[in-house]
Amino acid sequence: MASTCTVGIDFGTESGRAVLVDVATGNELAMAVYAYENGVIDERLPAPDDDVHLGPDWALQDPEDYLRTFQIAVPSVLAQSGVDPSDVIGIGIDFTACTMLPTTAEGTPLCTLDEYRRRPHAWVKLWKHHAAQPEADRINAVAGQRGEAWLPRYGGKISSEWFYSKALQILDEDPDLYAKAGRLIEAADWVVWQLTDVETRNSCTAGYKAMWSKRDGFPPGAYFAALDPRFERVVDEKMSRRISSIGERAGRLSERAAEWTGLRPGTAVAVANVDAHVSVPAATVTEPGTMVAIMGTSTCHMVLGDRTATVEGMCGVVEDGIIPGLFGFEAGQSGVGDIFAWFTDNAVPPEYHAAAASEGVGVHTILEREAAALRPGESGLLALDWWNGNRSVLVDVDLTGLLLGATLATRAPEIYRALIEATAFGTRAIVDAFESNGVAVNEIVACGGLPERNKLLMQIYADVTGCEFKVTASSQTPALGSAMFGAVAAGAAEGGYDTIVEAASRMARLRDERYVPNPAHRAIYDELYGEYRTLHDYFGRGANDVMKKLKSIRARPRSDV
Amino acid sequence: MASTCTVGIDFGTESGRAVLVDVATGNELAMAVYAYENGVIDERLPAPDDDVHLGPDWALQDPEDYLRTFQIAVPSVLAQSGVDPSDVIGIGIDFTACTMLPTTAEGTPLCTLDEYRRRPHAWVKLWKHHAAQPEADRINAVAGQRGEAWLPRYGGKISSEWFYSKALQILDEDPDLYAKAGRLIEAADWVVWQLTDVETRNSCTAGYKAMWSKRDGFPPGAYFAALDPRFERVVDEKMSRRISSIGERAGRLSERAAEWTGLRPGTAVAVANVDAHVSVPAATVTEPGTMVAIMGTSTCHMVLGDRTATVEGMCGVVEDGIIPGLFGFEAGQSGVGDIFAWFTDNAVPPEYHAAAASEGVGVHTILEREAAALRPGESGLLALDWWNGNRSVLVDVDLTGLLLGATLATRAPEIYRALIEATAFGTRAIVDAFESNGVAVNEIVACGGLPERNKLLMQIYADVTGCEFKVTASSQTPALGSAMFGAVAAGAAEGGYDTIVEAASRMARLRDERYVPNPAHRAIYDELYGEYRTLHDYFGRGANDVMKKLKSIRARPRSDV
Repeated sequence: MASTCTVGIDFGTESGRAVLVDVATGNELAMAVYAYENGVIDERLPAPDDDVHLGPDWALQDPEDYLRTFQIAVPSVLAQSGVDPSDVIGIGIDFTACTMLPTTAEGTPLCTLDEYRRRPHAWVKLWKHHAAQPEADRINAVAGQRGEAWLPRYGGKISSEWFYSKALQILDEDPDLYAKAGRLIEAADWVVWQLTDVETRNSCTAGYKAMWSKRDGFPPGAYFAALDPRFERVVDEKMSRRISSIGERAGRLSERAAEWTGLRPGTAVAVANVDAHVSVPAATVTEPGTMVAIMGTSTCHMVLGDRTATVEGMCGVVEDGIIPGLFGFEAGQSGVGDIFAWFTDNAVPPEYHAAAASEGVGVHTILEREAAALRPGESGLLALDWWNGNRSVLVDVDLTGLLLGATLATRAPEIYRALIEATAFGTRAIVDAFESNGVAVNEIVACGGLPERNKLLMQIYADVTGCEFKVTASSQTPALGSAMFGAVAAGAAEGGYDTIVEAASRMARLRDERYVPNPAHRAIYDELYGEYRTLHDYFGRGANDVMKKLKSIRARPRSDV
Repeated sequence: MASTCTVGIDFGTESGRAVLVDVATGNELAMAVYAYENGVIDERLPAPDDDVHLGPDWALQDPEDYLRTFQIAVPSVLAQSGVDPSDVIGIGIDFTACTMLPTTAEGTPLCTLDEYRRRPHAWVKLWKHHAAQPEADRINAVAGQRGEAWLPRYGGKISSEWFYSKALQILDEDPDLYAKAGRLIEAADWVVWQLTDVETRNSCTAGYKAMWSKRDGFPPGAYFAALDPRFERVVDEKMSRRISSIGERAGRLSERAAEWTGLRPGTAVAVANVDAHVSVPAATVTEPGTMVAIMGTSTCHMVLGDRTATVEGMCGVVEDGIIPGLFGFEAGQSGVGDIFAWFTDNAVPPEYHAAAASEGVGVHTILEREAAALRPGESGLLALDWWNGNRSVLVDVDLTGLLLGATLATRAPEIYRALIEATAFGTRAIVDAFESNGVAVNEIVACGGLPERNKLLMQIYADVTGCEFKVTASSQTPALGSAMFGAVAAGAAEGGYDTIVEAASRMARLRDERYVPNPAHRAIYDELYGEYRTLHDYFGRGANDVMKKLKSIRARPRSDV
């Protein structure tokens, strides 16, 4: 019997991933990954322009890689599954964000034009392009001075990763290119435009990355003018005030895009979404009270609320940002899995690597096994999980990692456990911030790469936060979520669902396993968390600025010393 | 032409080492090492009593190993050199301290008697036996309550390693054995007793380890009684009030000891000395103003003064303790080389080990080379060098190591350099404590294992302290110093010297190399040292006791958690 299906496409940092999902059950029938040919462009432009070098902290992408994802990954899932394209009723996409690019008024990326392709600002700025920090500093300073009403919605500080930081960097550094750009647009919306020939702007990136709100719209022109007179009309000149809510249909698949993908022209295409946010309904969560933690190299924390609230250091609160009709709160930890990866790559001695090789497992497995044999507090170690700065609740990229308690008897698995515990304390700090501002967090659903692989980590997180942890059944949560929004774009009339809540109830599932807090462990972790908070506040709130001073000493130009 | 020679014997932690030295030039003609058969006894007694297990923090030795050093290493240097025993005019010895043992009134170690050999307290307690911490705590508490006048001479706190801590532990835990002991004696003095049949007590260990001073003698009986009524007469019952100054002759070689060693009966034998202290004249230092740093797994800092002073956290000040006629100040860092060894063993990834293996060098060499390419401050890291606690100036074994400033870009050579810098900051804190209390430190002479091997470390120490560093020519500094005291025991009349100052001027030398502070580096290190001191005081002086709290949580009995 033929299944009715949708395609979800998740545009990640290194690759694009397509899944073909059964609308009735949520079963994933096929999956394909396209590794971007030009990947992350962070040293020089792609050939033949590879004599053009990029500055520190730059990170670009090639928009052609996104189109190739449509052309390669989507036909692959059709071929693998044998599903007839006429049974595919919808397409949804999610993207990293803010990942943005300048295009012509017709949507042609400037970097694809000979005239502009050697100019770095013509390319896609990937979410982790961090070279717009001076612009972010200006944006925050001016907003603070003017008492901008939107600032508290973003925890009091916006990031160098976000839309206006990147847009303003283009204006600052390549004003001619800025002037020539007909559009500045999220890559998420741009790929939907390429599929449908309809330009839309989704409420999720507009809200979380471009300071839009359903009630107040964008920041006022006077604010933009205070940043730079040429920036006053950025919204009207380069963007759009027409925002489409997630859950809506952006349009239908064009003939051209149908050829790329092998899908039927006219297939419903959902308004674009963001990888972390689209994971929430895919993790079964469509109501307040349950946090979704998307745990990988970094962690995003999503919670729904039925009213807004101001929470220190959150990334943002957006009405309709995650689930239509609710306020979606986002917070984040900027370093989690990448701290563990740093540790195994840079601080684990050969004996553990040799043991892993001889058992045919990864070194994480060896470390996890030995770390699991320790009881809470046994390592005598405490860490601050700031190897990649602190996003929530301190919003400070200049904070750095700390390890305390080392002795001559300290061994690698103890440090590994201390780093896991530190990231768990970081999560607890975020949970505490939500709860103390009236946003309930009763339990947590985890998804992403880490929860599948590391049971010790999940148990420690449960013990540290005191929250029961569940794990999503899918290991492609964002792509599944996009497929769910594809079903909503089609609607019940075409074989899908009319709401994301309904789609979630049918297509999203959790695993059977539960991580329940161990009361004895929790008591010890309460003590350790108290110590963590003392250090967190001492180093993170200005009492001792040594981390910033070390960074500034390090950044000084090399003299003749 | 036959040389006039002396033998210096250095009793270390794992082995005893003899050198045969030309009295006229200080040239080392032969060297031999005897690795102790029973080494450090820290888990169980030697066979056949190896069913007797030791508690945590115990560290014992076998006195027979010391006699075997005489019987093996001394004949070896004579045989190697071909020197006629009649040309050997003196013997000097130095020892780790406080390393002490209970004996009969005649000097027979209790552990060699069948009646006692299965009782752990009958054995030699090695310097690093740390199981007497409760006794040290009591000693300090009672001394503080009574306002004992000698306490400030020891930086306000005495160590679990020292004489009365160990003696009181015997009384606490094996009072019968304590009662049976005719003597409690430093192993240094015991081996001299074995050579000469004369019991002496040297001014160096008496002063630094047993609270004796030339002016005030030992602490009063009322103090000892306050510790334990049975301890009131410990000095008169188990020790001696007759103290021999270093530089004196203890006696002459007995027939029995002449047979052991192959030396001539009647050869002059010097009063015993301590390894670190005997290194000072061997490092050419016999006047105030120059610090001697004996740098190995830990570091001892020795300075001479012409008057006493109270210096926070110093290990002790003893008149005639190093050079007769001067006050000898001692301070120390409890972890230096062993922190670097910990790091290379426990936190360096395989690539550096592979590079070392392929070049046929140690991993330290690879790390040093890469660390040397960094400029001061470039790592962005700062550490507190407390992996083995802090001896001077905080005198706190419960402090632990801290590393701050880590990012995802941090690499092993950067951490290695930060750890070297941290130990250099620790040395600067000691130099500052001396100088701010009127004890001049104008330059530093380094000896021991580290200065020979690690030029980067020496330059960093010079840059951090602002002091020029020199290095001793001998790599057997303590044994050379003992040979020098052997020459003084013989005296000019027998072909030696009448004073250690004269011996030093003839027999001790420095290398040509000098490490001169680089002013540009020094300026950066002044800034970093300021940050180090802030952390040092915050974590070390009670503002944040997290290190102690973590240790206490760790030490809790394992429950069902």
